[in-house]
Amino acid sequence: MLTLTRLDLTEARTLITAAKAKAEEIGVPMCIAVMDESCNLIAFERMDGAKVPSITIAIDKAFTAAGTRNPTKGLGEASQPGKPAWGVSSTIGGRMVVIAGGLPVASGGAVIGGIGVSGGSPDQDLEVAEAAVAAFVGG
Amino acid sequence: MLTLTRLDLTEARTLITAAKAKAEEIGVPMCIAVMDESCNLIAFERMDGAKVPSITIAIDKAFTAAGTRNPTKGLGEASQPGKPAWGVSSTIGGRMVVIAGGLPVASGGAVIGGIGVSGGSPDQDLEVAEAAVAAFVGG
Amino acid sequence: MLTLTRLDLTEARTLITAAKAKAEEIGVPMCIAVMDESCNLIAFERMDGAKVPSITIAIDKAFTAAGTRNPTKGLGEASQPGKPAWGVSSTIGGRMVVIAGGLPVASGGAVIGGIGVSGGSPDQDLEVAEAAVAAFVGG
Amino acid sequence: MLTLTRLDLTEARTLITAAKAKAEEIGVPMCIAVMDESCNLIAFERMDGAKVPSITIAIDKAFTAAGTRNPTKGLGEASQPGKPAWGVSSTIGGRMVVIAGGLPVASGGAVIGGIGVSGGSPDQDLEVAEAAVAAFVGG
Repeated sequence: MLTLTRLDLTEARTLITAAKAKAEEIGVPMCIAVMDESCNLIAFERMDGAKVPSITIAIDKAFTAAGTRNPTKGLGEASQPGKPAWGVSSTIGGRMVVIAGGLPVASGGAVIGGIGVSGGSPDQDLEVAEAAVAAFVGG
Repeated sequence: MLTLTRLDLTEARTLITAAKAKAEEIGVPMCIAVMDESCNLIAFERMDGAKVPSITIAIDKAFTAAGTRNPTKGLGEASQPGKPAWGVSSTIGGRMVVIAGGLPVASGGAVIGGIGVSGGSPDQDLEVAEAAVAAFVGG
Repeated sequence: MLTLTRLDLTEARTLITAAKAKAEEIGVPMCIAVMDESCNLIAFERMDGAKVPSITIAIDKAFTAAGTRNPTKGLGEASQPGKPAWGVSSTIGGRMVVIAGGLPVASGGAVIGGIGVSGGSPDQDLEVAEAAVAAFVGG
Repeated sequence: MLTLTRLDLTEARTLITAAKAKAEEIGVPMCIAVMDESCNLIAFERMDGAKVPSITIAIDKAFTAAGTRNPTKGLGEASQPGKPAWGVSSTIGGRMVVIAGGLPVASGGAVIGGIGVSGGSPDQDLEVAEAAVAAFVGG
């Protein structure tokens, strides 16, 4: 048998609360999703006024970051024309999102989940995701 | 133009908090989803230990209840063999859930969203959804 | 954080090997799938001559058994017309299989995965799945 | 009538065993899938620790290689901006994977199946797939 560690709901809510605080600070309503290390959804919130497509994009950014154990932004770079991961964005029914705003969440060297943020520019989404992860690590 | 009323995130979180309290009271970890009146997800939480298929079923119960503006349990009765809604459970790629546990949320005579609960028996799921809606109306 | 236990690949292969032995004994080529407790596929084999639809049905029986933490056969009974889980077979895009042949795999009181078998009659599928789980528990 | 030749399960397992040996040698846990010439799954294994998105990507690399009867890497080159196969990666619901790591398996001039590997870099995935095919041909 394998033994695994995983984000719990309290930790997922800590991530979302910190993300919302940063999103409010920059004045952009966001969708925020938290997945576990097995790519199953733990928690999600859509801030009032956030965009409808951002619901799915936030969820899939979290899926991608938790699943690849890497920031989605790096996958964007690796999938540019001519690069090795070219075409990855349409795999898994398009669930692999290569836009900034998805980050893995790690503890003790293991990825225990991921967060995905969507609603602003990719840079804003990433800023919000980074604030969330920083709050988790610092907690 | 149409003017709509819709659950906001604070209200969605009130629904989820009340649902979790009831789920803890009966000792069954649940997935709880809240949709708006346009069938778009506002908030979701999976309690620690809740089942993976319940993630999708809770979301789709909320979709069904908000969309049909009726409890999912009634759709179960209406879709029995020989009844008029026979076959509805496989429409929309199977998103129409006819199992108890999805309820519309109304205000001033208008449906403004829906809640879906999954993780226990259908009766338990419905009990948790009812506790959530009662907390909202009473709030 | 949550700490979980999960089937590893060696255990999944033990399950499949035992399933194949029973399938050969009764003379019916089968598809056999093993999922982890988070409903992600660990291993799959289609015996020579097994039917093409059985590929997906075996995988989805394993998904259902691991996810609901119960035999798929019980879900068949609970979803008969007029019963509480009526309509469950079309949820999650039809991935919830209510036909015998899916069993959870447990250890120390926790479900750590599931097996799904398809290719024969539901009774034969269940017999093969039971032989696999018996081999795992006895190992 | 057509008479076809196709990988059998024993051969599929030979491919997977050789792939796992190479993956262990380079120290990267992989997902490995083998399809038949009709693009139906024969066998699959996820090594302990391999990533969840790699499950689907390995299966779809095998689908693409068996189906196109060509390495997936070549499709990556042919689908670059301005090239004739531009856009192919999003066909078939995204199942056409244009990333290295999928190879056809041939015998006597006919493609009899395909293998797909995912979990490392595209170069690592291809190295593992090549080791598998070499073991098959040499066997």
